Amino acid sequence: MTDLTSSPAAPAEPVHWVLTLSCPDRAGIVHAVAGLLAEHGGNITESQQFGDPETHLFFMRVQVEAAVAREELTEALTALAAQFSMTWHLDVVGRPVRTLVLVSTAAHCLHDLLFRQRSEDLPIDVVGVAGNHRDLEPLAEFYGKTFHHIPVTKDTKADAEARLLALVEELDVELVVLARYMQILSDDLCRKLEGRIINIHHSFLPSFKGAKPYHQAHSRGVKLIGATSHYVTGDLDEGPIIEQDVERVDHSRSTDAMVALGQDVERRVLARAVRWHAEHRVLLNGHRTVIFR
Amino acid sequence: MTDLTSSPAAPAEPVHWVLTLSCPDRAGIVHAVAGLLAEHGGNITESQQFGDPETHLFFMRVQVEAAVAREELTEALTALAAQFSMTWHLDVVGRPVRTLVLVSTAAHCLHDLLFRQRSEDLPIDVVGVAGNHRDLEPLAEFYGKTFHHIPVTKDTKADAEARLLALVEELDVELVVLARYMQILSDDLCRKLEGRIINIHHSFLPSFKGAKPYHQAHSRGVKLIGATSHYVTGDLDEGPIIEQDVERVDHSRSTDAMVALGQDVERRVLARAVRWHAEHRVLLNGHRTVIFR
Amino acid sequence: MTDLTSSPAAPAEPVHWVLTLSCPDRAGIVHAVAGLLAEHGGNITESQQFGDPETHLFFMRVQVEAAVAREELTEALTALAAQFSMTWHLDVVGRPVRTLVLVSTAAHCLHDLLFRQRSEDLPIDVVGVAGNHRDLEPLAEFYGKTFHHIPVTKDTKADAEARLLALVEELDVELVVLARYMQILSDDLCRKLEGRIINIHHSFLPSFKGAKPYHQAHSRGVKLIGATSHYVTGDLDEGPIIEQDVERVDHSRSTDAMVALGQDVERRVLARAVRWHAEHRVLLNGHRTVIFR
Amino acid sequence: MTDLTSSPAAPAEPVHWVLTLSCPDRAGIVHAVAGLLAEHGGNITESQQFGDPETHLFFMRVQVEAAVAREELTEALTALAAQFSMTWHLDVVGRPVRTLVLVSTAAHCLHDLLFRQRSEDLPIDVVGVAGNHRDLEPLAEFYGKTFHHIPVTKDTKADAEARLLALVEELDVELVVLARYMQILSDDLCRKLEGRIINIHHSFLPSFKGAKPYHQAHSRGVKLIGATSHYVTGDLDEGPIIEQDVERVDHSRSTDAMVALGQDVERRVLARAVRWHAEHRVLLNGHRTVIFR
Repeated sequence: MTDLTSSPAAPAEPVHWVLTLSCPDRAGIVHAVAGLLAEHGGNITESQQFGDPETHLFFMRVQVEAAVAREELTEALTALAAQFSMTWHLDVVGRPVRTLVLVSTAAHCLHDLLFRQRSEDLPIDVVGVAGNHRDLEPLAEFYGKTFHHIPVTKDTKADAEARLLALVEELDVELVVLARYMQILSDDLCRKLEGRIINIHHSFLPSFKGAKPYHQAHSRGVKLIGATSHYVTGDLDEGPIIEQDVERVDHSRSTDAMVALGQDVERRVLARAVRWHAEHRVLLNGHRTVIFR
Repeated sequence: MTDLTSSPAAPAEPVHWVLTLSCPDRAGIVHAVAGLLAEHGGNITESQQFGDPETHLFFMRVQVEAAVAREELTEALTALAAQFSMTWHLDVVGRPVRTLVLVSTAAHCLHDLLFRQRSEDLPIDVVGVAGNHRDLEPLAEFYGKTFHHIPVTKDTKADAEARLLALVEELDVELVVLARYMQILSDDLCRKLEGRIINIHHSFLPSFKGAKPYHQAHSRGVKLIGATSHYVTGDLDEGPIIEQDVERVDHSRSTDAMVALGQDVERRVLARAVRWHAEHRVLLNGHRTVIFR
Repeated sequence: MTDLTSSPAAPAEPVHWVLTLSCPDRAGIVHAVAGLLAEHGGNITESQQFGDPETHLFFMRVQVEAAVAREELTEALTALAAQFSMTWHLDVVGRPVRTLVLVSTAAHCLHDLLFRQRSEDLPIDVVGVAGNHRDLEPLAEFYGKTFHHIPVTKDTKADAEARLLALVEELDVELVVLARYMQILSDDLCRKLEGRIINIHHSFLPSFKGAKPYHQAHSRGVKLIGATSHYVTGDLDEGPIIEQDVERVDHSRSTDAMVALGQDVERRVLARAVRWHAEHRVLLNGHRTVIFR
Repeated sequence: MTDLTSSPAAPAEPVHWVLTLSCPDRAGIVHAVAGLLAEHGGNITESQQFGDPETHLFFMRVQVEAAVAREELTEALTALAAQFSMTWHLDVVGRPVRTLVLVSTAAHCLHDLLFRQRSEDLPIDVVGVAGNHRDLEPLAEFYGKTFHHIPVTKDTKADAEARLLALVEELDVELVVLARYMQILSDDLCRKLEGRIINIHHSFLPSFKGAKPYHQAHSRGVKLIGATSHYVTGDLDEGPIIEQDVERVDHSRSTDAMVALGQDVERRVLARAVRWHAEHRVLLNGHRTVIFR
């Protein structure tokens, strides 16, 4: 397997590292982490932490400039992690996360991600676009992305998922984004991609779960519609929420007008969720998320 | 019964009327209404309408200055209404709506309504405050309002509701506001006050119906909390929505912090709903509302 | 000149018309307009009006379904307009407005307009894109739009503006959109295109007029950045405002990060302004606007 | 002088401290601070930091639970501060800040602060209300606050300011809040209260500085109005901004309606600014602020 996050063994230049960790809360964690980083000549540029009084878990994200080799830092962190029962991840600030985008026919989310990647330094590298329809192939190609057509029928669903998984491995995919991909994934696939697959749901969850949320919203007469980006789990529309936002509607909006307006919220919410994930700002706290913005 | 909306029989001065109506949609309604108003020397100052393509109902709100007696206008409207199968309401712009506020122990909504009535020309006249606890009596009295203590237990619920209804009649109450009144009203009472009783629910409905919505929201890990003001019907938390709004929360917010933050949204949303109702800007369209802002 | 807004002389099918008008306020306008429309068999589907108590001007926008020929309606309106000193405009609901987009190097606004035109029924027909740089030529061509390269230097400015005006005439352009076009137009050009040229300014006007508004915003330490879409007049950044919106920033945002974040607000605000203009929802009230949403 | 922030000399119970500091940025600050806190048995519960790449200043806020005497902690911090050229402040989490509120005749901000203090744990202790008019005396008294009537005329301004300063000293006031106090303070008073006097300005600064901002906003035809809370300096309306927010308006809003709507934004913005200041979340970075929310 390619080492996606490699950096020079003995850096002459300082590297800007980002470290995220979580562990059972207790005294001395910050001091221990800051100490470890200081020992390796690190200068902390950004740091956030949160101790959850309910779960008694502690979460931390720290950016540090240090002229230290990855192996050396990894070794030190491994030792510390053992001591504090830490889950941790080390990466380089700004490294683009290798991303596969799954689509059906709606263009707005794919379009937005590709545009933001190019123009706004969204730190992802879209290594491929896969669709169960061919509608968005030209759009993908305009941005120089390979389009993989993987049709899905009831009978071919297992095959299609196998092809998706194969793609994830071939392309060293770190993040899968469901950009209005209108297929329900199997529990098995959800489990295999756990923590690295993000969906955009076109409602303000937990309202209007399931199909046709804008129809539901219109019928209930709500005054705000919304969108929710969340990690995908086997439990449909119940995964940990990363981001949500809303838009005002009034009585004169038809369902179709809500759908059109909602596209704006959907793409904005998805783009934020993908950015925060790719910047290692999202940590899992059970079925909720800690977001260090 | 007192005529709450009386105006001089033969006004020397023009009166600023507000007329709301709804009826099956068909050609010529606007022309007929505008014609009727023109015949009585009316000058339209504000007018809005909406034809619902789904229910085929037509809604209209018009403000008109006219030096015409109420009786004369009423007679003309009655004739027109028969022709178009209209439901209609005529009132004077800015006339304070006689309002009874029901409370329990939480002060923020009552406080806000009383303050806005005094300082911001919220067009209501709070003719009384009734509470199942005495906590808010001093607040009511500071604003010169009579406080009615109507305790409720499982055994006295029917009696308490009878007292409430009696109060509504004695005080010629036009609007009842549940300002975080923590009692579920009987179907019977809901029916009797239909269309003139407004509640504030402390969640973004239809999410988190029922009890302890902030606990539910915290547990689900949502990124926005909200509040919903709606007409009360026998179907709990399912009445027609008048207004909703949200506030951003993050992972560090405890349930208690959400409750505190939510108070701000609740009072804002309730105040808007009460204002729009009192300004005759809310029309019922089945179990949804048309809001002419 | 092509008649951009022609419709069948004797429609068998009803046409959905949109009529906007303004005139000195006085009694009877609504009745007269509704009467005229009723005489021609019109069914009003949407109608809004506003009487400005300060300028004593009256504004109205009405959508009406009527199986009437344009000539007949025009004749009737011309007569009415003379009577009430009206300025008026008649069009067909949803007819795409012929639009020329001017750009420099920043892609986000052009990108957004082209995408919305295609996917969200933004009722414009982009008949050409003109840029003083060639950077956005591929983007324009991906959407099938002809790109006109009109370089501008101090010496060639007059020539460049002449070419722009020629393009406006050749292409029967109804609306010019400055989509982050980084050139100041001459007074003369502004006058010639008055009321049909829209700009997006990257600040919450009147704050931070002129150059580098994000630098100014960062330096002042504001907590919200914004964008403003307005009609262009000879008076730089002082034209009538159509729409504004803001986004929250905090101390950690560098100027560059503000620029990136601001792109989102800019494109959203510009898209709304263009939509409302193209739907004939914007009426001029001196140097302010009336927006019938 | 009373020690406002005293805590037991030898606490048996741990105290929840909040430490804020700023200093020139360099490697090792976080480690040094975390080390100092760990040496005194501290458990960090919340910590945020920011290094400004432009000013090369470093800012930190840390909450720590520690069973340590104030004197001991103060001594250690004094030594550390010398080493890093730190400005620092140590306090107890949640300790109410002794606050004097200055008012004229508008009630909404005073009303909101007093209500929030009581109901939402806004961590201030309003030790007095001073007004140049008597209008708000009953409101202050309802909340059990002493009202000081300090009339101001052109001739008595110096005397009035002397009385205010005397009050600040007598009452050990830590924070002065200008809750729509319609007097311009002298440079001298601004300097004496620097960093501990907060104003609410009724516009989205830097737009509409000076008098009658809503009139200016109405006349310019803006689509959003706002409010700005800032520290007061001798340079009118130019002090460091703490918080801003906006509210949407449309063409139908008169100036008076904007004033009424603006009250809502003003009180919300002021309440947030006061809360953040009182929770020691606001640090000065030249004429800008760092807000650790």
